Amino acid sequence: MLYLCRVKILDSIMYPEDLRRLSVEQLPQVCEELRDFLIHSLAVNPGHFASSLGTVELTVALHYVFDTPNDRIVWDVGHQAYGHKVLTGRREQFDTNRKMGGLKPFPSPEESEYDTCTCGHASNSISVALGMAVAAQKLGSKRQVVAVIGDGSMTGGLAFEGLNNVSSTPNDMLIILNDNDMSIDRSVGGMGEYLHKMHTSSAYNKFRDKTARMLYRWNVLNDDRKGRVLRFNNAIKSLLTNQRNMFEGLNIRYFGPEDGHNVVKLVHTLQHIKDMKGPKMLHLHTIKGKGFEPAERDATVWHAPGKFDPETGERLKSNADEQRPPRFQDVFGETLLELARQNDRIVGITPAMPTGCSMTIMMNEMPERTFDVGIAEGHAVTFSAGLAREGMKPFCNIYSSFAQRAYDNIIHDVAISHLDVVMCLDRAGLVGEDGPTHHGAFDLAFLRPIPGLTIASPMDEAELRRLMYTAQLPDMGPFVIRYPRGRGVLTDWRCKLEAVEVGTGRCLRKGSGTTAVLTIGPIGNIAAEAIAESGLDVAHYDMRFLKPLDEKILEEVAQRYSRIITVEDGTVEGGLGSAVLEWMADHGYKPDVVRLGLPDNFVEHGTPQQLYEKLGIDKDGIIKVIRS
Amino acid sequence: MLYLCRVKILDSIMYPEDLRRLSVEQLPQVCEELRDFLIHSLAVNPGHFASSLGTVELTVALHYVFDTPNDRIVWDVGHQAYGHKVLTGRREQFDTNRKMGGLKPFPSPEESEYDTCTCGHASNSISVALGMAVAAQKLGSKRQVVAVIGDGSMTGGLAFEGLNNVSSTPNDMLIILNDNDMSIDRSVGGMGEYLHKMHTSSAYNKFRDKTARMLYRWNVLNDDRKGRVLRFNNAIKSLLTNQRNMFEGLNIRYFGPEDGHNVVKLVHTLQHIKDMKGPKMLHLHTIKGKGFEPAERDATVWHAPGKFDPETGERLKSNADEQRPPRFQDVFGETLLELARQNDRIVGITPAMPTGCSMTIMMNEMPERTFDVGIAEGHAVTFSAGLAREGMKPFCNIYSSFAQRAYDNIIHDVAISHLDVVMCLDRAGLVGEDGPTHHGAFDLAFLRPIPGLTIASPMDEAELRRLMYTAQLPDMGPFVIRYPRGRGVLTDWRCKLEAVEVGTGRCLRKGSGTTAVLTIGPIGNIAAEAIAESGLDVAHYDMRFLKPLDEKILEEVAQRYSRIITVEDGTVEGGLGSAVLEWMADHGYKPDVVRLGLPDNFVEHGTPQQLYEKLGIDKDGIIKVIRS
Repeated sequence: MLYLCRVKILDSIMYPEDLRRLSVEQLPQVCEELRDFLIHSLAVNPGHFASSLGTVELTVALHYVFDTPNDRIVWDVGHQAYGHKVLTGRREQFDTNRKMGGLKPFPSPEESEYDTCTCGHASNSISVALGMAVAAQKLGSKRQVVAVIGDGSMTGGLAFEGLNNVSSTPNDMLIILNDNDMSIDRSVGGMGEYLHKMHTSSAYNKFRDKTARMLYRWNVLNDDRKGRVLRFNNAIKSLLTNQRNMFEGLNIRYFGPEDGHNVVKLVHTLQHIKDMKGPKMLHLHTIKGKGFEPAERDATVWHAPGKFDPETGERLKSNADEQRPPRFQDVFGETLLELARQNDRIVGITPAMPTGCSMTIMMNEMPERTFDVGIAEGHAVTFSAGLAREGMKPFCNIYSSFAQRAYDNIIHDVAISHLDVVMCLDRAGLVGEDGPTHHGAFDLAFLRPIPGLTIASPMDEAELRRLMYTAQLPDMGPFVIRYPRGRGVLTDWRCKLEAVEVGTGRCLRKGSGTTAVLTIGPIGNIAAEAIAESGLDVAHYDMRFLKPLDEKILEEVAQRYSRIITVEDGTVEGGLGSAVLEWMADHGYKPDVVRLGLPDNFVEHGTPQQLYEKLGIDKDGIIKVIRS
Repeated sequence: MLYLCRVKILDSIMYPEDLRRLSVEQLPQVCEELRDFLIHSLAVNPGHFASSLGTVELTVALHYVFDTPNDRIVWDVGHQAYGHKVLTGRREQFDTNRKMGGLKPFPSPEESEYDTCTCGHASNSISVALGMAVAAQKLGSKRQVVAVIGDGSMTGGLAFEGLNNVSSTPNDMLIILNDNDMSIDRSVGGMGEYLHKMHTSSAYNKFRDKTARMLYRWNVLNDDRKGRVLRFNNAIKSLLTNQRNMFEGLNIRYFGPEDGHNVVKLVHTLQHIKDMKGPKMLHLHTIKGKGFEPAERDATVWHAPGKFDPETGERLKSNADEQRPPRFQDVFGETLLELARQNDRIVGITPAMPTGCSMTIMMNEMPERTFDVGIAEGHAVTFSAGLAREGMKPFCNIYSSFAQRAYDNIIHDVAISHLDVVMCLDRAGLVGEDGPTHHGAFDLAFLRPIPGLTIASPMDEAELRRLMYTAQLPDMGPFVIRYPRGRGVLTDWRCKLEAVEVGTGRCLRKGSGTTAVLTIGPIGNIAAEAIAESGLDVAHYDMRFLKPLDEKILEEVAQRYSRIITVEDGTVEGGLGSAVLEWMADHGYKPDVVRLGLPDNFVEHGTPQQLYEKLGIDKDGIIKVIRS
């Protein structure tokens, strides 16, 4: 590595003001060092990788040109902001990134004055930045506000709402569109056509050449399975081909596209446009994973690759992987394909998470029956409603915390009409290192009041398969299945697909004592261990369904036991524990009820095990409650 | 009225098949009769008025050209679909429209096979229609799918997500953009500029002329208070001026703009484009309130005008109005202005409801401190977060059921950072005639699990004022105030603005019996009457805050009373009743708890009084529970 032979400039940069003391000519070296720092750090302390490599030059240029922290940089999705952390006082703690008690996974104003907003969920940057820009005006603060948004995030409706409003609200903000070409349209023909339609200015020509190369690379990668690859919805891309019209039509001055990896040119461009009045957009073309060849080649895999060898690019896998139980997401993916082979009404819908939820497994075999709709959770659900209305059986997979974005769609477009939409919520409960923005803490509580919804959570992989089978049977109405990130507990998980009776739980252990434990979802396994280890004669029921509740079990429990402990990996306000309390009150029973679950505060980041321990809902915590 | 002298064609039309037997030349008469039918019906049985007058020709043309119900018409927001109801078998019941047990307020598949989806909330039509179009393809059904969406609905992010996906998913659907010019940009200069930039094709010229006339009319209407009028955010309008690029850039074939009131031409256009392959958009220019002069002049007032004289256009007001207590929305509007005069950090944000929530009162005096962001609830909240981040004090007013669309924004953009955003949820609880899509049934339950949120509901107008005053004090964090549609209970409501201690309720009546009634919000007034009339010695507490709960009151109640009745106008699953149960369980108390509120099903339409009675939470219902 070249930088080893040079004096390290990066070491002298604690804060952006140090950066701003350098000459423009030194910036390429800063970028090289920063990139190298990120590669070597993330090789041993894994995190989001490819995005931040793509924004190295942009990050350096922004902090060089703008007077941060007085000027505000609003990052859309913190994945791209690792370089920003390193340059804003956090280089020396960067090895604690995403670790419990260490740097937070995403920029956070609680951590640094250089972090301007919570940015875990995509597409919010334009709205936030507009609010800041308007506030600056009202308060007479002299400051610039810059939103940095990726082309993927631009497919979210919130980004459009923001853009729409930027154009009609007086402001001087700058929007940087970080276009890393990770949005590849399913129709190569269409894309080619758009490119052909482009204006023929020199900038456009350069962009066209670059994109053509990307497409070529894409083709090479996919060869005979063209169209089956992970696809991002990218109609927005086609808008970009007419960008001078679109954004300028919105009264936003448009600049670009420019090479986002030429830091010197970037600095000059930013200096040139920063003081212009009115809203502006700078369109940059960047490469996700830039500067690390394996990541450039396959940015999806390298989005969050885990540990790797920074010299060879070899990803380090635990050899135990093969013997371990599968990830829930893969059980979902495999089972969905099995079901889809049997039931031709089944289609799969994902808002930009085909890999994350393993819908790729079905996508590879049945590309025409899977729909990646882009970052657009609301549309994913409402589109599913339209499909279901005509007799299709959509499986719409959304991460639990992102499903918060489709709440009205679930109520208004699905539940009111009692449509047969299956909503699989992956990443329910604590997700670990991604922290408070990503924990699926609220789904049980916010879904429970919706009339007519079936809400289930499987305790293990076999149960997930049975619930998925059940959900696709005729006339099931809206059916939610929520399951966590990570692995299940069974290695032999390919059970027969058979129906579960809706609204029934399972008695896992009879007890002749006074206490019954009622659980929902995989946290039931921890409770089972706790019960076994407690040595006490405690009953255990896997409720399986939050709604409808298994009233037979509740009746039995109410009559036999005087003490009920409910355990769930969701908020204790309004979840299973509350449902049990409500039922008991409505039916005249008065057992002692202890509710275990996530507390009434936002849970920080850490490994799930660390967090469960801290919250007292790991094995030992549950034992303690059982014994008390 | 002319039609009286003619044979009535409308009488012979029960279903669209009857319409399709007519010659094209007869359609203008059908339109005239239909418009007249609507005017005379709505004069005596009020409902949404101006929108449906604007779509008379479109409705007739659609059912004439398309083979409904096999072909699908997806109306975005049912306001525009009264003509559709009349032509699809419901003319004779139209006098029951919006009445309990009568025709539903919005098209509903449960009511008619001609109604294709639930359409109470804006912007969902494109997503639903795309799902239907894709399903038709997969199932080999020969059918056309048409989405009809207004320019207002186009500002919603969901519409953009749908549009974005239409362009990249193979389909043959038709989108009709019903552009009724109710979106007027705040900047007339900007609008003029866009118009100037327009292409000079004949269609564009016509459109320009028409728009120029509209602008002229708008100017005349507003005179010296230019810029202060009710404004809709309309950046989308500026996109339309570049429409050939925008929609065609999205690979959607664009036709128009055309006069939406020339039914013969409309029929020909629709016949011409209906069988074209691929997604298409037809842009129509219509006039909201068309054909009824007072409504054409002021479409906002005539959106839902109540009863009126169909000949003179005089709106019939109850003369008792002056002596009645004010509407909660007006108390909000007046109080917001008072507060804004004292606190220059306060700004008002509304997603397209300035009139509906009476933010117009502040808007008139302080146009530069109020922001109508268009139909964009998510953006409204996230934009508020950006404002709050910089020290402003945003009051963001959203109807309760529409706040479901901003759920993630409340959690992710506001609550995680504990920002000082005041969210006023109007139309909480039962809204009456607008029915299940519009009842604010879930807000208490879905907001309660969010950490750090303050959630309050005032029992009367004075309490609303005090809560609003409290919410704008420094460092209050996110603060929700929810209140219902309709009037309060005080005629003398302009109390002094003073603070309420957060998390405290009020003891309204001591009781020496065994029962205490705990209420939240204005339904507490009904409970108070019920208690008085029951003749029993029952205590009554107005909890005022759902979060944080007043633990002193709960402690007192738990110790003194063995029976607690909770009353709320929200779902009983997860609301105040559950919160009380949770607290009692956590603190080792076991009173009998009876929870009164909205049931676990979608509540139909009817007057609020009828609905409360049916649900057993009117005065008599509560008395019955108290006595039992």
